[in-house]
Amino acid sequence: MSVEEGTANHGRLLSTVRGPQDVKRMTAEQLDILAAEIRDFLIAKVSRTGGHVGPNLGVVELTLAMHRVFDSPRDRLLFDTGHQAYVHKIVTGRQDGFDKLRQRGGISGYPNQAESEHDIIENSHASTALSYADGLAKAYALRGEQRSVVAMVGDGALTGGMCWEALNNIATAGNPLVIVVNDNGRSYSPTIGGLADHLSSLRLNPGYEKVLDTVKDALGNTPFVGKPMYEVLHAVKKGIKDAVAPQAMFEDLGIKYVGPVDGHDVSAVESALRAAKNFGGPVIVHAVTRKGYGYRPAEEDEADRLHGPGAFDAETGKLLAVPSVKWTNVFADELVAIADERPDVVGITAAMAEPTGIATLARKYPERVYDVGIAEQHAATSAAGLALGGLHPVVAVYATFLNRAFDQVLLDVAMHKLPVTFVLDRAGITGPDGPSHYGIWDMSVFGVVPGLRIAAPRDAGSLREELREAVAVDDGPTIVRFPTGTVAADLPAVRRVGTVDVLAESARTDVLLVAVGSFAQLGMEVAARVAEQGYGVTVVDPRWVRPVPAELVELAAAHRLVVTVEDGVRVGGVGDALAQAMRDADVQVPLRDVGVPADWHPHGTRAQILADLGLTAQDVARDVTGWISRLDAQPVDEVQPDQAGAKN
Amino acid sequence: MSVEEGTANHGRLLSTVRGPQDVKRMTAEQLDILAAEIRDFLIAKVSRTGGHVGPNLGVVELTLAMHRVFDSPRDRLLFDTGHQAYVHKIVTGRQDGFDKLRQRGGISGYPNQAESEHDIIENSHASTALSYADGLAKAYALRGEQRSVVAMVGDGALTGGMCWEALNNIATAGNPLVIVVNDNGRSYSPTIGGLADHLSSLRLNPGYEKVLDTVKDALGNTPFVGKPMYEVLHAVKKGIKDAVAPQAMFEDLGIKYVGPVDGHDVSAVESALRAAKNFGGPVIVHAVTRKGYGYRPAEEDEADRLHGPGAFDAETGKLLAVPSVKWTNVFADELVAIADERPDVVGITAAMAEPTGIATLARKYPERVYDVGIAEQHAATSAAGLALGGLHPVVAVYATFLNRAFDQVLLDVAMHKLPVTFVLDRAGITGPDGPSHYGIWDMSVFGVVPGLRIAAPRDAGSLREELREAVAVDDGPTIVRFPTGTVAADLPAVRRVGTVDVLAESARTDVLLVAVGSFAQLGMEVAARVAEQGYGVTVVDPRWVRPVPAELVELAAAHRLVVTVEDGVRVGGVGDALAQAMRDADVQVPLRDVGVPADWHPHGTRAQILADLGLTAQDVARDVTGWISRLDAQPVDEVQPDQAGAKN
Repeated sequence: MSVEEGTANHGRLLSTVRGPQDVKRMTAEQLDILAAEIRDFLIAKVSRTGGHVGPNLGVVELTLAMHRVFDSPRDRLLFDTGHQAYVHKIVTGRQDGFDKLRQRGGISGYPNQAESEHDIIENSHASTALSYADGLAKAYALRGEQRSVVAMVGDGALTGGMCWEALNNIATAGNPLVIVVNDNGRSYSPTIGGLADHLSSLRLNPGYEKVLDTVKDALGNTPFVGKPMYEVLHAVKKGIKDAVAPQAMFEDLGIKYVGPVDGHDVSAVESALRAAKNFGGPVIVHAVTRKGYGYRPAEEDEADRLHGPGAFDAETGKLLAVPSVKWTNVFADELVAIADERPDVVGITAAMAEPTGIATLARKYPERVYDVGIAEQHAATSAAGLALGGLHPVVAVYATFLNRAFDQVLLDVAMHKLPVTFVLDRAGITGPDGPSHYGIWDMSVFGVVPGLRIAAPRDAGSLREELREAVAVDDGPTIVRFPTGTVAADLPAVRRVGTVDVLAESARTDVLLVAVGSFAQLGMEVAARVAEQGYGVTVVDPRWVRPVPAELVELAAAHRLVVTVEDGVRVGGVGDALAQAMRDADVQVPLRDVGVPADWHPHGTRAQILADLGLTAQDVARDVTGWISRLDAQPVDEVQPDQAGAKN
Repeated sequence: MSVEEGTANHGRLLSTVRGPQDVKRMTAEQLDILAAEIRDFLIAKVSRTGGHVGPNLGVVELTLAMHRVFDSPRDRLLFDTGHQAYVHKIVTGRQDGFDKLRQRGGISGYPNQAESEHDIIENSHASTALSYADGLAKAYALRGEQRSVVAMVGDGALTGGMCWEALNNIATAGNPLVIVVNDNGRSYSPTIGGLADHLSSLRLNPGYEKVLDTVKDALGNTPFVGKPMYEVLHAVKKGIKDAVAPQAMFEDLGIKYVGPVDGHDVSAVESALRAAKNFGGPVIVHAVTRKGYGYRPAEEDEADRLHGPGAFDAETGKLLAVPSVKWTNVFADELVAIADERPDVVGITAAMAEPTGIATLARKYPERVYDVGIAEQHAATSAAGLALGGLHPVVAVYATFLNRAFDQVLLDVAMHKLPVTFVLDRAGITGPDGPSHYGIWDMSVFGVVPGLRIAAPRDAGSLREELREAVAVDDGPTIVRFPTGTVAADLPAVRRVGTVDVLAESARTDVLLVAVGSFAQLGMEVAARVAEQGYGVTVVDPRWVRPVPAELVELAAAHRLVVTVEDGVRVGGVGDALAQAMRDADVQVPLRDVGVPADWHPHGTRAQILADLGLTAQDVARDVTGWISRLDAQPVDEVQPDQAGAKN
């Protein structure tokens, strides 16, 4: 263990914590020990399982104070972007669950109502908690219930437009409600660009840290860690504090401001929370914290690799994962190669420069990358503006997060026929982050957008090629989507028909297997198994799935059965779209669509979840063999309802 | 004409305006005359065609000043929520087009790139212009082009989260860019609720108007209209001005603030714009205007009926439309009836209380209605909070606007299995507002959301019934969607199978016609025509279209051909969903899906657009007859590609 204070209590105090009441009765001294034990615990556990270690090390004292001042679950504690709720889980009786954190059957990396009555918001998308809080506070006001509503939100999440909408409404309603701003000035990674010039309200922290520096200088570089920052600060002359604190801005909005307080001083936070609780209206408690606090590898982690890593070495913070070429790296390198050739190509990311690979472009061409904050709507529409201005923006986000910008992609980009390329990383089933991180909706939802082309590459070579094709489109938007993790093995085509790659062919034309994107390899394995049963299978990768390639319909017409397999929801998916195109062309070949059921799938590894869903070569081959053999056995015009094949 | 100044110039000066250059060379005196002529023109024209008269009367001088200070199209003038661009259209040579404003083949009610090189943003959704502007300014900075970017945005649109995201990014980037805040303090209608307590930044105007009142009192009630407000205000002692102007807030954000200026004083606005143009960074010019300025019926229109009316009497402002019972009224009245019985039912609207009918509930139960501003994301997620707090929220918005909240409906509401009812007015093809107002995406996009039920009522009785069924659901969200205009004639069912209404039956079971929602009547007419050709047609209204009712699949299995007709995009629509359910159940009856092609359909009347799309009884009956007769003629297993039936 490498916690700064090096406490050797071996978690004795922590082991007595079975619920919030156990934290409430502790002394100030005990709380300090407990905080250290919680950090030891987090580092020990999360270094083995992987998980959001950095954010949680930063909110230990904040969370303890929240549970001491308020009475959960009667009072409602909401955690925005729920990955900062580990300490809350520890306090509410779930220490034992951390051995299987984010693993199949283990506890979730986010709050989860099924785990605890103390959990409320389950999802992983940022900037929602204040809106929930507004609704809860209004409900309690109308029903005459005396409960406090407390929302912890990061400074990064405050860049999301939902927070602005919520703050306006919270101020207007005037209900009692406490907003704890967990201000580590980092969001997902240190702020980049010209931000420093406009820091005071954009990011709340940097200006404050400047004061801190001043204070530290004045005090002769007394170490920051563990000092009662709040008291120190109050010794600073008021003029300086006012110059950097965002008090004026929040109070302009009609919300009482308390702070800034040292977010690592439990008693300072408690005092602020008690004042806020008793205020009788909406209050912001501005707590300054350090991401990764108390764990040097995380505190000093400029690239923010310890925000939400896989397993790591607890001593050094070094990630244990075996190096492998990720889809993300292939994209990142190819984007730089394209940008070398085309000065009009620029990158946009929404607070995800490193995880999406856009950082690679930023390192070479810093002036050509825009990090817009956790603001996917603005990412899409400012990309529309960039395109109107003659550039070709590449917007790189996780597939699940583009849902935030559906309306903007539809109207601001596509209706204006603007050339913007959206690159969706972590598409399909992702794994340990659970249902709100799954990128399974994009092909269905964005599939309705007129003029939008969607590509799903199957391997590194096709990702490079399809990215280049996407960036070459000049009359409308494109999406290039690929999954998480290690890039699939190369899978060469035997020939190309129009835009469709034929991966395998047979003399017999029984089954056309349309294998979408990363499922190409699955398709090949299915084909091999079905061929063993004596059927001929053609495997194709459509490459561009929207609009449906005309050649795909022609290929379909030349087979007895069409089966689509895709890493996205079945409803409205590629299979659905091909079936419609076949109907329109009067192609009456039966089609079966295999994909992800539209449902809330739990966390686990990607392989586990896919296996649970029957998306394995064995399962799909069994289904395909069943379908084609029934075509042999059954007169075509006989109608025989049968639910056996249904997956959704 | 009832313009206050009563100018009798008969548009002589206006007729000389063929482009911005003609406005640039006018004297101050001529500009005043021109402004009056433009108001005469707007009232005369829009009273005949219908259109957004109120907003445009408020921006006459602002628009003239923008065209004098900047050089469109080299400089880029962006109009947020484009319905405030009529004056811009007049100035840029499109006076002649106003005789067919918003009519088929006539000019659009929004900027339109095909109409003019001066038009940029075509869509009608609020709060996008600042994001476009950020992208444009970044592109010009990177490309080294010297062009100004100017965005006019209303104070109402500033309540949208996109504006917050954009302001943060604009401040960070620091590029030259002028934001003209058109502050009429009204947005779509006067602010309601507890707003007055927190006015200074939530809405920019009311506080300012208080100053105005103070000033007016001090000046002995000198009439407001036509006074040089800017100069008057600068005579007020600085203390008062600072107390109410939002300068501090915007400058906290790192954006230079200029104002407030009298938005009806061309030279005052010009001075401010010139200063802003030369500033070299982002500037907000805060212009205070009066919606409907210069036309008493619009200025005094508290219910804001003259925001965007149909045809009206130019003299009195009275709407000419024949009274009829609208879908909206049926919903509004039934919601009040439900609320009478259930104290847990509350209403939410996004700055659309009157147009959605939520105002009816608000008049009876003001404490049970929340107007969240132009903030659909917050509407959805605060509804989730209300539901967590034990209430049943009914969120009433236009169908096109719920797209803004897809992610929130998916994760914040549906994943949490919260009982929230979304009521989508203006669903399907709407008409004169054109492509960005069409509510044709909802059934496809929200159709992927697990656990979300969607109802499409066909007449007043079924709207009442399905709304009650929706509000009775307690384990997840529902959508009830209906079109614009006069409610359809009652269409009684002959029987009900499960949740499906059978509207007509025949002894022969040739065709099952699935007529969705408002297309029930169309379905009946199609059936009558097809029956004339000797085929038996069963017409059903599924009522609840998602999830697909099992009974619908069973009915499909008992017919030779299934045809769906729906007022939404075909891709991912009800037909698509039924086809998938039939595949899953091994029901091999051929299906044809008739609906709206996923495309950008122009403005016109709803009837015209539907006729253009072949969505008439005559056209659909011809197709259905063709499909069923080909089944007679053709062996079922013969594959014969044919594009004739394709609509998408």
